[in-house]
Amino acid sequence: MSRVRNRVNKEAWKKLREVCIIGTGMHKFGRWPDKGVEAMSRVAIQEALDDAGVEFDDIQAGWCGRVSNITSTGLNVFGAMARNGILVDNVEKACASSSTAVRIATWAVAAGIYDVVLCVGVEKMERGLVTAGVGGAGGDPLDAFFAYQMGLFLMPAEYALRAVRHMSEFGSTPEQFAQVSVKSHKNALMNPYAQYQIDMSLQDVMNDVMIADPLTRSMCAPSTDGAAATVICAKEVAHKYKGKPITIAGWSSGTPEYNPRAVGDDVTEGFVRRMGQEAYDLADVTPKDIKVLQVHDAFAPGEIFAIEELGFCEEGKGGQFVWDGAADIDGEVAVNTDGGLESRGHPMGATGIAMLAEIVKQLRGEAGDRQVPGDPEYGMIQNMGVGGCNIFILKT
Amino acid sequence: MSRVRNRVNKEAWKKLREVCIIGTGMHKFGRWPDKGVEAMSRVAIQEALDDAGVEFDDIQAGWCGRVSNITSTGLNVFGAMARNGILVDNVEKACASSSTAVRIATWAVAAGIYDVVLCVGVEKMERGLVTAGVGGAGGDPLDAFFAYQMGLFLMPAEYALRAVRHMSEFGSTPEQFAQVSVKSHKNALMNPYAQYQIDMSLQDVMNDVMIADPLTRSMCAPSTDGAAATVICAKEVAHKYKGKPITIAGWSSGTPEYNPRAVGDDVTEGFVRRMGQEAYDLADVTPKDIKVLQVHDAFAPGEIFAIEELGFCEEGKGGQFVWDGAADIDGEVAVNTDGGLESRGHPMGATGIAMLAEIVKQLRGEAGDRQVPGDPEYGMIQNMGVGGCNIFILKT
Repeated sequence: MSRVRNRVNKEAWKKLREVCIIGTGMHKFGRWPDKGVEAMSRVAIQEALDDAGVEFDDIQAGWCGRVSNITSTGLNVFGAMARNGILVDNVEKACASSSTAVRIATWAVAAGIYDVVLCVGVEKMERGLVTAGVGGAGGDPLDAFFAYQMGLFLMPAEYALRAVRHMSEFGSTPEQFAQVSVKSHKNALMNPYAQYQIDMSLQDVMNDVMIADPLTRSMCAPSTDGAAATVICAKEVAHKYKGKPITIAGWSSGTPEYNPRAVGDDVTEGFVRRMGQEAYDLADVTPKDIKVLQVHDAFAPGEIFAIEELGFCEEGKGGQFVWDGAADIDGEVAVNTDGGLESRGHPMGATGIAMLAEIVKQLRGEAGDRQVPGDPEYGMIQNMGVGGCNIFILKT
Repeated sequence: MSRVRNRVNKEAWKKLREVCIIGTGMHKFGRWPDKGVEAMSRVAIQEALDDAGVEFDDIQAGWCGRVSNITSTGLNVFGAMARNGILVDNVEKACASSSTAVRIATWAVAAGIYDVVLCVGVEKMERGLVTAGVGGAGGDPLDAFFAYQMGLFLMPAEYALRAVRHMSEFGSTPEQFAQVSVKSHKNALMNPYAQYQIDMSLQDVMNDVMIADPLTRSMCAPSTDGAAATVICAKEVAHKYKGKPITIAGWSSGTPEYNPRAVGDDVTEGFVRRMGQEAYDLADVTPKDIKVLQVHDAFAPGEIFAIEELGFCEEGKGGQFVWDGAADIDGEVAVNTDGGLESRGHPMGATGIAMLAEIVKQLRGEAGDRQVPGDPEYGMIQNMGVGGCNIFILKT
């Protein structure tokens, strides 16, 4: 840990302008074989602009997150807005691409360079892309070669190994992991943008096709097409627009201190814990303040690991936490209220903004049937990608 | 022009910290079939760190620019540095990818979020990629279809059409365009990092294989492999390191106000002029202050267009300007002193930082045989990509 060098200058951050999200929009996640990234993005962008009450011509700069075929995507999806002459950059950080877009946008607005900007995340995924796996990127070629030979190049295998170790060290059970998916599917029933709106019992999840023991198919994020967009603006000008502003209170970003010869939680646990701590520190809050949380459950155990690593329960108790309903909508902290990656879907480039959109809805009290009770003041997202993580803490 | 909405808040920019470049490094540009992006980047990164006198562990964040196969590149090329836990993002803006990395890094440092960061640009190019062309991206599918049918989807054709229109409107000649390439090749003879170190006479250039009349092969940027890196830091901490700081005095970035039904300079001329003006404005300088300039001569006429659009001569006089030697190393403004895209080479993701590296060398007085005389105080780059442009003005 002593080698970590990326700590943000908090004093400097506090001197910058406050930044908020004033609008979000999404194209329903799912399989959209007949729609291109442009068509999906247009729907998400228009919804975000309408939500914010911001005109097309008010947008001063833009960032686009996408993973596959990113080249020139921003130009294409911003379309006529780009033809207004605004700067549009493309950014990529695997499954954390669009939260990277939002982070960069946040800096530019906080620094005063722009007042009102737009971020878009979009993806068209090949069937089986996630399960085919991009894991192991970032290691050196020899590591990757051995990882592949051992089946570790496949994301489900990586998560399954961590899950098995968690079971062995802490006594968590396959049923607890499965319960994550049961909860996700239940939440997604109340989210019209979700890819899957299917009620699944514990037995349904446990009896689904086995992918990598203990992970069955419904404990893995699907391949998804979709788009999400958000309008970011300086708090001092937010009153000009109708969208209720939700402030970006803190953020963090970094890369795992990666030990390519480690397996299980040795690889990343300290990392997410550190990232969470940096974001809490920047926002001057603790986990107790966070009432709604979206985490990167690309595979069901991921939610349990994140709940522990972000400090919502003791190490090793995450499985029980979920099993006891503490992560339910009316629990201690509502986790993945929109269905998470597993049920809302995971179009890689769009996931980060979708997470933020859910927190914005929850903090505004606009989440409908899945609204977290008690007027939550703070919400948080943890968006992981190969090579990094972006965390945001939002406040009303 | 009235639709342009991306003007930077100059007052806010002036309140931020001054940012400088304290080190640059490159892997020699050329054809490197046996080297991956990691191997080339490592050479460029080490050279940049050595030049700056910055240790590996001092780097707090990183950005990587690449066009093809960008996914996870940053993580791979930063290697053990990423394993220190620092944030590493990938950014893409076609041929302006690595200058986009530098712009975002500049914001983060100016805002005080980080003190010392690293940017890398890298590319491995398929043979013929540029001449096969990515032009036309950004238009709608129907425009792209017609553009392709008309041969306009090919970059050389786009530049050739603009060149022919320039000849027709202003009386410029194929010899003037060819002279750009003669000068570039002459300058590249003095640049050990250049892909081509071949002396070419006007006759050699004019008699080369015709690609798109009036552009012969040596008037087109080649396909290139290469990497470039730069260490960016806050001016207030630059004294801690040995690299002589060169200040980022101004920048601009935007997207052409694109009219897909226009051809020739209608498409972009107003754009580069506007971008140049924004950068001059931010840096409080005029073209008269700039003594060394790297422009995006993906094709030879591009240098002439840029010289005009950036205000170094009247509209239509750029051909004569180059022909008269005013863009030579000892001319009014030394243009593409390192050989430019045509002779130094154009590994898309690396080009922007290579341009900056040349300006840094020139302003430090470290450019050896190709040193611009008279201790230049200001230098400028114009890095174009499909979908945008980044301009930087540097000062000693």
